[in-house]
Amino acid sequence: MDTPAFQDFYPDKSAHCYGCGRLNEQGLRIRTRWEGEESVTRFRPRPEHTALPGFVYGGLIASLLDCHSTGTAAAAMYRQEDRVMGTEPGFRFVTASLQVDYLRPTPMGCELEIRGRVLEISGRRITVETTVLAEGVATARGRVVAAQITSS
Amino acid sequence: MDTPAFQDFYPDKSAHCYGCGRLNEQGLRIRTRWEGEESVTRFRPRPEHTALPGFVYGGLIASLLDCHSTGTAAAAMYRQEDRVMGTEPGFRFVTASLQVDYLRPTPMGCELEIRGRVLEISGRRITVETTVLAEGVATARGRVVAAQITSS
Repeated sequence: MDTPAFQDFYPDKSAHCYGCGRLNEQGLRIRTRWEGEESVTRFRPRPEHTALPGFVYGGLIASLLDCHSTGTAAAAMYRQEDRVMGTEPGFRFVTASLQVDYLRPTPMGCELEIRGRVLEISGRRITVETTVLAEGVATARGRVVAAQITSS
Repeated sequence: MDTPAFQDFYPDKSAHCYGCGRLNEQGLRIRTRWEGEESVTRFRPRPEHTALPGFVYGGLIASLLDCHSTGTAAAAMYRQEDRVMGTEPGFRFVTASLQVDYLRPTPMGCELEIRGRVLEISGRRITVETTVLAEGVATARGRVVAAQITSS
């Protein structure tokens, strides 16, 4: 049932990211997969990820959107080339810019769902739009421009 | 020598934020002070705060800018009212929107300096512009719109 996530295909040398590196033991280790045309990450904030009591820290939300979007960009590039993820040459993206609009407070105590959609692929830059949902309610929206740094 | 930081004046009930709450033992506990017209935070990323090896995680940078800016907003509101920080009624801001432009990779292994400037005070919304510096080189720029949530 546990299908591989985008981040599972990152080579070891780029798998230490605090947000999404499977080799970062202190990190968030987010995992993102396609669900149709959307990319989806599910993440349950830890008790310390609080802002004002009862609500999720906005910096955590920014972090989730960041890594969700760079992962989506890598997966989108594989899709565009009609290749299986993980085949060589691989793709890895970093964040050129990040925009987050906080629509309402995000409650603690539930699993968050981040849903992304590729807005534009322009050469080595991919724009990803994201929504954060808490129990089905959108609490934040993001837009990331991801820049490709490697193709190996 | 250790002058109080903006965050030292947050009341206990709003001092648990992962980014800036002095009562959050797992958090970043950033501290921000005025240096003339600029607000300044200095922070040394922990080893786990890595992105690709050798560079600072972009989500951490977003988190630093987030809390730096809401703290600056609170301090700016006191300044505007010509009041000493910590006097009642107090001010606390949350982030309405966050924009980060990553100019170049931010190196690990040094203390980062975040410098902020109040761009606009419009009623209960304050816009703060920020720059992240690593050994004097600007590596990221941010803009936060902070919204006042309390005045008590």
